[in-house]
Amino acid sequence: VKERADSRRKRLRLLAATRVAVAEQGLGVAAADIAERAEVGIGTLYRRFGSKDALIELVLLDSIGVVSTAAQRALDHEDPVSGLTTLLSVLAEGQVGNRGLREYTMGVGGERSESIREHTRTLRGALEKLVQRAQSSGAIRDDVTWRDVAVLAEAAATSGTYLGIAPEAEQWRRTLAVIMDGLRPPGSAPLPGRPPVDAVTPAG
Amino acid sequence: VKERADSRRKRLRLLAATRVAVAEQGLGVAAADIAERAEVGIGTLYRRFGSKDALIELVLLDSIGVVSTAAQRALDHEDPVSGLTTLLSVLAEGQVGNRGLREYTMGVGGERSESIREHTRTLRGALEKLVQRAQSSGAIRDDVTWRDVAVLAEAAATSGTYLGIAPEAEQWRRTLAVIMDGLRPPGSAPLPGRPPVDAVTPAG
Repeated sequence: VKERADSRRKRLRLLAATRVAVAEQGLGVAAADIAERAEVGIGTLYRRFGSKDALIELVLLDSIGVVSTAAQRALDHEDPVSGLTTLLSVLAEGQVGNRGLREYTMGVGGERSESIREHTRTLRGALEKLVQRAQSSGAIRDDVTWRDVAVLAEAAATSGTYLGIAPEAEQWRRTLAVIMDGLRPPGSAPLPGRPPVDAVTPAG
Repeated sequence: VKERADSRRKRLRLLAATRVAVAEQGLGVAAADIAERAEVGIGTLYRRFGSKDALIELVLLDSIGVVSTAAQRALDHEDPVSGLTTLLSVLAEGQVGNRGLREYTMGVGGERSESIREHTRTLRGALEKLVQRAQSSGAIRDDVTWRDVAVLAEAAATSGTYLGIAPEAEQWRRTLAVIMDGLRPPGSAPLPGRPPVDAVTPAG
């Protein structure tokens, strides 16, 4: 019994360490870094999870799962603009706060499992529905597509120094507030150019 | 005479090659890559410019010079919002189209020459003035600072795949159009949080 409890503790410690390591260092984090953070031997990592990739897959599934669940909950908002704001906030915060999630959403790091892609499809579907609803209710301008809005969520997440200016971690809230106001109808002029399309191999 | 003309041609070819190489590959581009693009020996590069860094410095000075000149010209617009839109377009386009310039503006690649920092100061000053003017005329909401607006220009430049969506190179024009509309007064609510401040070692 004691052995099983110990094994369980190590497993949880490895998962927690991977979560932090992926958020800070991204999907390419080394197995040794994870093991060190978890304060277990690297052999323990492989015995418990088979491979580093399997462990990262679990953690990424959890991260994207949180976002896709939030996206579906956003559909329950009575006010479609509140729902949309909530979803875009979740997206922007995920991009800023979790490097591994950001890499995945930006197509870095190769193919992912069907479960992860399923979450991405859910997320995309929820965003599309929310934008449609907000447009039907007249609360969001008609010349944006849901893909434009996705790009805007990513834009809000811009962080890092620029021209010597160092935004705080929460800057995305200000940028997103301006963007949400910019989505109110009518725009001062129709949006230029063509809306974005899916990549040749879309996520999901 | 012929020798001098040949020498001049090589110099120009090296400068043109470096411009393209820095725009595509960034400030870390290898001297060998530049020489290959210019179709000259690497020895020629060093003889003409002393070092790869000196050559990159010249090209970066030119890029940031174009932006700072455009920034000063934007001050001549009669309508402060047109001026501001022009400047933000120049900034966003520079971020999207020139990796080396993007790296510099984001503080990557270390200290730069006084001439380059002078251009950055000019640029920051022009942006600050334009935002002030647009706010004084009531055309831009009062709760943004010029530093928020700088971050918004950078945000507009977001490119790259996101959630399987692949924006075109010109997507920044659509994103910026939404952002400009979001800057019109009044905002639906005051911006949350605190405006960004300069990095400890500001550019310039």
